[in-house]
Amino acid sequence: MAKYTIGVDFGTESGRALLVDVADGREVATYVHPYANGVIDEKLPGTEIRLEPDWALQDPNDYLETFKHAIPAVLRASGVDPADVIGLGIDFTACTMLPTKADGTPLCFLSKWRNQPHAWVKLWKHHAAQPEANKLNEIARAGGFAFLNRYGGKISSEWFVPKAWQILNEAPAVYAAADRLIEAADWVVWQLTGVETRNLTTAGYKGIWSKREGFPPDAFFRALDPRLEHFVDEKLSRRISELGQNAGGLTAQAAAWTGLRPGTAVAVANVDAHVAVPAATVVEPGRMVIIMGTSNCHMVLGTQERLVPGMCGYVEDGIIPGFFGYEAGQSCVGDHFAWFTENCVPAAYEREAAARGISIHQLLEERAAALKPGESGLLALDWWNGNRSVLVDVDLTGLLIGATLATKPEEIYRALIEATAYGTRIIIETFQNNGVPVHQIVATGGLPDRNKLLMQIYADVTGRPIVIAGTHQGGALGSAMHGAVAAGKAAGGYDTIVKATKQMASLRDESYTPNPAATAIYDRLFAEYVTLHDYFGRGANDVMKRLKGLKAEVRGVRG
Amino acid sequence: MAKYTIGVDFGTESGRALLVDVADGREVATYVHPYANGVIDEKLPGTEIRLEPDWALQDPNDYLETFKHAIPAVLRASGVDPADVIGLGIDFTACTMLPTKADGTPLCFLSKWRNQPHAWVKLWKHHAAQPEANKLNEIARAGGFAFLNRYGGKISSEWFVPKAWQILNEAPAVYAAADRLIEAADWVVWQLTGVETRNLTTAGYKGIWSKREGFPPDAFFRALDPRLEHFVDEKLSRRISELGQNAGGLTAQAAAWTGLRPGTAVAVANVDAHVAVPAATVVEPGRMVIIMGTSNCHMVLGTQERLVPGMCGYVEDGIIPGFFGYEAGQSCVGDHFAWFTENCVPAAYEREAAARGISIHQLLEERAAALKPGESGLLALDWWNGNRSVLVDVDLTGLLIGATLATKPEEIYRALIEATAYGTRIIIETFQNNGVPVHQIVATGGLPDRNKLLMQIYADVTGRPIVIAGTHQGGALGSAMHGAVAAGKAAGGYDTIVKATKQMASLRDESYTPNPAATAIYDRLFAEYVTLHDYFGRGANDVMKRLKGLKAEVRGVRG
Repeated sequence: MAKYTIGVDFGTESGRALLVDVADGREVATYVHPYANGVIDEKLPGTEIRLEPDWALQDPNDYLETFKHAIPAVLRASGVDPADVIGLGIDFTACTMLPTKADGTPLCFLSKWRNQPHAWVKLWKHHAAQPEANKLNEIARAGGFAFLNRYGGKISSEWFVPKAWQILNEAPAVYAAADRLIEAADWVVWQLTGVETRNLTTAGYKGIWSKREGFPPDAFFRALDPRLEHFVDEKLSRRISELGQNAGGLTAQAAAWTGLRPGTAVAVANVDAHVAVPAATVVEPGRMVIIMGTSNCHMVLGTQERLVPGMCGYVEDGIIPGFFGYEAGQSCVGDHFAWFTENCVPAAYEREAAARGISIHQLLEERAAALKPGESGLLALDWWNGNRSVLVDVDLTGLLIGATLATKPEEIYRALIEATAYGTRIIIETFQNNGVPVHQIVATGGLPDRNKLLMQIYADVTGRPIVIAGTHQGGALGSAMHGAVAAGKAAGGYDTIVKATKQMASLRDESYTPNPAATAIYDRLFAEYVTLHDYFGRGANDVMKRLKGLKAEVRGVRG
Repeated sequence: MAKYTIGVDFGTESGRALLVDVADGREVATYVHPYANGVIDEKLPGTEIRLEPDWALQDPNDYLETFKHAIPAVLRASGVDPADVIGLGIDFTACTMLPTKADGTPLCFLSKWRNQPHAWVKLWKHHAAQPEANKLNEIARAGGFAFLNRYGGKISSEWFVPKAWQILNEAPAVYAAADRLIEAADWVVWQLTGVETRNLTTAGYKGIWSKREGFPPDAFFRALDPRLEHFVDEKLSRRISELGQNAGGLTAQAAAWTGLRPGTAVAVANVDAHVAVPAATVVEPGRMVIIMGTSNCHMVLGTQERLVPGMCGYVEDGIIPGFFGYEAGQSCVGDHFAWFTENCVPAAYEREAAARGISIHQLLEERAAALKPGESGLLALDWWNGNRSVLVDVDLTGLLIGATLATKPEEIYRALIEATAYGTRIIIETFQNNGVPVHQIVATGGLPDRNKLLMQIYADVTGRPIVIAGTHQGGALGSAMHGAVAAGKAAGGYDTIVKATKQMASLRDESYTPNPAATAIYDRLFAEYVTLHDYFGRGANDVMKRLKGLKAEVRGVRG
């Protein structure tokens, strides 16, 4: 009798359930549930209470509704007997966190706190804790706290401690009323199982925790604010659960929500990007997974602990147990092309695309594909949204050089694609030069489907072959795979994620091989890119920051 | 009885006659005659003979037709008695040159040579003599010929000697058959008067002649090519005529063409840009005339001989007798905005402009005007068409820095305007720092009418007040003024161009004053511009040239 697991992938605007066959990872049914309150960034739902700029909240009820709608829907669509669903896994955006009572009730569910923005879920892209992040980094640097090195030298305002600290600073009563501060990923597992667990991945990548050192010492938190001295013991937990563990069986209530059987194994939570790595077949060093979408997220495994400058972070066992999981990122990839298409493509192109029934992206790709490497004479720095890796500097901005009166839009478009490829090559070479080798790229996410030119350029620029993950639902599939590991072999699942990957993950019959002639040209262009990257990015000429500072000054914004 | 003069301005596509009142410069009638053969850059007229890229020829008959149509037309339209027309002046594009027989007959009028492209007029923008210009500059530098210093260190491929040398190299028979090589400016005066004169302005700015040193020595020409040793004496003339001189009276034949009286005074020829200086009221040092159009041409007078790095050239008596006339240039101004509008403005803007019945330029100007200096965070190097002054480098290319995902088209548009203003400020400061002061800008040309935002930005960036020339026909009015000087006071004209200017030239009742707050911001942006200008333009990072070289290599073009 076939066995199944379900993965639930909690995204920014919606949650998705995917029901897969444990034997081969076949995707049997999927269902997307849009969050009723979506991203809350203007007013608190049902009120006239306005949010400050840079705020981004969510409603935890939307997560519960996802379970209630999406899981019954995939059961219905597949016709699978709930008795044959042996496990459930979830993945989430991160750091997405909320304050709760000791029993897991979100503070925002209580009428006393419902009108207080700090009582709600802070979504990953809530950026209002920047002052706290800046202060935290200053204090950590000044105090010589070595954990900073694990995160490329900087803790992001998106992460757990700055967000928690912002609650304390701006709403001390909410902070005091919160028995627990917890990742939404772990909170939804708590709701399914009645058991509070804390997953290793968010703890490691977003919560400044490591297997060897645990959390930063209380002295560090005291240095931030005396009220934070016992932060970990008061609001979190030092018990961190490994990936693939069974967090607990489904409660009767959660079984009623979902239509699954009580006691069904639920895996410890995971992060959307990280769980996509085994879903892309990668459970060993040397093959870098790049999730390519609005931004790029690069993940690669290593057997040894290495300090790699400018990465987002590394966590032992954080992606696949037994390996150091390294993460790096580029802030602006698909967003780049969207910006260009919206702001810089002339009406004549729009008319041609419309007449031919293709999108402007397709028209640009077609024309850009007709160009040879080096033919446009253009070069760009892909910093339209700052630089995450390897410079870790949000104040860097975009640059285009080489324009003439004969420059055409498709040439600029291609130069922007190439610039993001050079950015990826810098990341790969930084890993490689610091003892984390990369010999193949496994691409996943939305872009590999949509832009074959981009894929070939990445292969040519990096000089690495690129293969493509078989699934379009890396998060949900990875979660379903972890559900199979939580269920275990005895129940029809797997003992390890490596074994689950072997059976359930696959690659597409499509790959990109570097063209040596193109790579030779790109080597020369990359050398120019590196020179400009270092000149503008490493302090020789901080014009980008001064321009940005002047802009803020002129606009009367806090500089 | 009122007296009149006529100015004829020979442009790139057409010739214009302007009849003005000598007493006050009132513009009584004007007429434009489009050249039948226009710019010849594909096939020789009436043949299937194809021209190479970079060639640009004209038909001298089109100039004669201009006299035959435009002068009768302004006489007719004005009702002025030809007896009251006391003088005629002409100005021309330069260097625009042709080979003729000893009697002035253009070789291309002779059937023997009509099918030979080198027998026709080489227009100013004929760029096919670049190899000759490169070799000339090399030889002049290697030989230590000091005349190079008068031209910012480089003789342009557009100028007289490279063009003549190209004829010799590629069509030695045409070269041998040419008794004279002459500027079209001087050729048309010859056709009117029967007298071969050579005007000081083209000789000085385009022909490597100076009042103190004459032409380069024969040894220099021999070093170029032994066949050129006696170039000046064989093909040109060492007799150079001063501006405002009477070249001779109108011949009977020319009187028949034009309807003017035989013997009417004809001024020695002049250049369109240079003759526009007195037409813009400038006959003294300190006030820089900028002709603003597709490119910018900057002219200023000095009392002393100064070597100003990167200027186009300076000529004693070359603009106004008694002064050194200094010229500098920017290769890409109006062209810049045209490129941007054509290639980078999205369909939504085109729709909005159309709905409101305004041009895209007007829409962009309106939106850009709503921005404060520094607000966009953008900075550009205005080198889309290379840099003429002060770097004299055609291989430099455009740069835009500071882009983010929030950058809008009008911000880029404004940054391009600002970049050309910074380029002008570099030119002004280079003059100022080298002993040629500039305290006011007098703008003329097409842009001052079309873009008030640009004018205010120029005032703010340069910190100089800007006034606007009264005439829209700086070339034709300046020529008419020189016609009045050629006629002389006795005939009802003037003894000097200074006196003519006082009566006949005027300023508009419109000016732009620097806003100190804006200037303070622009000072900071200009400092950033200078750093980038020097980094990319003075050898610290020749990436622009390497990109351009690679582009040529990839396209299989001579690099």
